[in-house]
Amino acid sequence: MSRLYNFSAGPATIYEDVLKCAQDDMLEYQDTGMSVMEMSHRGKDYKEIFANTKSSLKQLLNINDDYEILFMQGGASMQFAAIPLNLLSADGLAQYIVSGSWSKKAYKEATKFGNVECVASSEDKTFSYIPNVENIEVNPNADYFYICQNETIYGTYYKQLPKCNNVPLIADMSSCFVSEPIDVTKYGMIYAGAQKNAGPAGVCIVIIRKDLLEKNAQSICPTMLEYTTYSNNDSMYNTPPTYTIYICGLIFQHILNLGGLEAIAKTNYAKAELLYNCLDNSKIFKSTVAPHNRSIMNVPFVSGDEEIDKKFIAQAKEAGLVNLAGHRSVGGMRASIYNAMSIEGVEKLVDFIEKFEKENL
Amino acid sequence: MSRLYNFSAGPATIYEDVLKCAQDDMLEYQDTGMSVMEMSHRGKDYKEIFANTKSSLKQLLNINDDYEILFMQGGASMQFAAIPLNLLSADGLAQYIVSGSWSKKAYKEATKFGNVECVASSEDKTFSYIPNVENIEVNPNADYFYICQNETIYGTYYKQLPKCNNVPLIADMSSCFVSEPIDVTKYGMIYAGAQKNAGPAGVCIVIIRKDLLEKNAQSICPTMLEYTTYSNNDSMYNTPPTYTIYICGLIFQHILNLGGLEAIAKTNYAKAELLYNCLDNSKIFKSTVAPHNRSIMNVPFVSGDEEIDKKFIAQAKEAGLVNLAGHRSVGGMRASIYNAMSIEGVEKLVDFIEKFEKENL
Repeated sequence: MSRLYNFSAGPATIYEDVLKCAQDDMLEYQDTGMSVMEMSHRGKDYKEIFANTKSSLKQLLNINDDYEILFMQGGASMQFAAIPLNLLSADGLAQYIVSGSWSKKAYKEATKFGNVECVASSEDKTFSYIPNVENIEVNPNADYFYICQNETIYGTYYKQLPKCNNVPLIADMSSCFVSEPIDVTKYGMIYAGAQKNAGPAGVCIVIIRKDLLEKNAQSICPTMLEYTTYSNNDSMYNTPPTYTIYICGLIFQHILNLGGLEAIAKTNYAKAELLYNCLDNSKIFKSTVAPHNRSIMNVPFVSGDEEIDKKFIAQAKEAGLVNLAGHRSVGGMRASIYNAMSIEGVEKLVDFIEKFEKENL
Repeated sequence: MSRLYNFSAGPATIYEDVLKCAQDDMLEYQDTGMSVMEMSHRGKDYKEIFANTKSSLKQLLNINDDYEILFMQGGASMQFAAIPLNLLSADGLAQYIVSGSWSKKAYKEATKFGNVECVASSEDKTFSYIPNVENIEVNPNADYFYICQNETIYGTYYKQLPKCNNVPLIADMSSCFVSEPIDVTKYGMIYAGAQKNAGPAGVCIVIIRKDLLEKNAQSICPTMLEYTTYSNNDSMYNTPPTYTIYICGLIFQHILNLGGLEAIAKTNYAKAELLYNCLDNSKIFKSTVAPHNRSIMNVPFVSGDEEIDKKFIAQAKEAGLVNLAGHRSVGGMRASIYNAMSIEGVEKLVDFIEKFEKENL
């Protein structure tokens, strides 16, 4: 067996220890006589797995009792509709910053369901930066203010949050979820498709402040998109994606074992620094992102020459460094260096970039 | 290790060979250098897994090119909204038969999105039978006619379909999917939550006739509930539940290896006959369902005495026969004997019922 260094943006590399644990449990979980996949979601054994997953996440992000954790389906894209359907009033307003493909999609979808305003965009420079939040005035009457905290495709990240005062801030954290400590109380709602740092594809984790659940959803909101359908039934109104949630639980527990988010963040920043330093010193490649907006999770870079990009991606693959092509909408390269990508993996990538540079200059 | 006989209604027992295969592949699928869980859904390796899953299902159900297969999320319950949002016109009509909890929920959800009529119900006798379809007149102008072909909770099954002529028949087949050969061309759309016969929880398979995709969805339909979002992007508009779909593919291939649906049906009917004969001969227990409407997948039964039911469930568990409690809404017992429940499992259950009877008469 030889596992490769997988820089995929998601679904993404998973801790080998977690996979080994899942492998050991596959035919029989502990002494339950069955695989987790086969367990009734209403049985004692699965309920314990589910409760442990939630409590590990609570511990990891230091989530207080003012918040509910919901496990939904349909990815972040389903939330693009669920958010206005649940939180935007008939005569209300929602404000969005458009800083990349995902927030643009979220904004566009929301316009179907009410009065929505784009207050800032970075599309003028191909989303290579985050609009300056200092210049943004949040409307104090808005139902919510929306950002995508880390744009997976363009590799940008909000280091500073807009000043929302009493307006709930909603953040799509799909690609930076559980990558470093955050102050959850700054947000009305955080959500994340799991398939980057949290688990396999097929579950979307929503962390929402309880007062927002008291709002009536729009009458046209499908029952399965209503947040209270989940909060009133501990995410078991119908069958949740049980096995996917179990793997998330293994990952959360593994991160706790590694020392929690403080420890993880230290490694993540070290990994990002290694790679950005290499790119900043490179004579062939360069990062595409404004230095103060750089993501520590997704690192796009280009040579400016499509042929060189292609050659790099092909030779990297031969060297065991895979899924380095940029998103199909932007081209170039992108190294996603999520939690489960080891520092050794990033070192190998940096070595390879330097070697490639020597051979091609 | 000792795997139990698991009669859960879903998530449900899975073929041991499939679990072993998933176990072998967990750290590295073939020579790809990674787990299926870690693969980009847009990469060559995963696309092959996905295409194989679809083509196995196509072969299994003999699905012709007039139909599309979509992989969605949110379970059957999400379809309760998606169906009217996609297929019910502003001035149109949809007709439903309510034969249990699930079709009742589907009907109720549809009333939010248009003109919907319940043309028959079996609620008068606690859903213990299927309304006689001979007596039902399908409105020729209806946008669609809806049934739940197999009611998981009450254990009923349509042996005969309503005469729909040109009105598309839509069937929730969650609990009878791929359990026997069916004529797909009799339906406008079939759908099934996977977590009974098809795979782990977290994917809902939709098989829809292509002409129905030409209909415009309602303007309030969330993008992620629109069928064309899936059909136009081969179910990859956003990240699908990749690992769950892979397990479905292993199961479909395993059924093909066992001889396809003809062979599976033969065993399923033999299993059901064994169990129903035992119940019909029992002096303590009885089936709750009209004989001509009995499901071969879900077999509810009762003693009429809650204490005896409880004792039976507890002693069965000690004997390694688990998840035999009826749905929390109806009580009693229910044995779900899906494809992956072996005939030996059903024999053990029958032996246990007979032994229990001797000891308690």
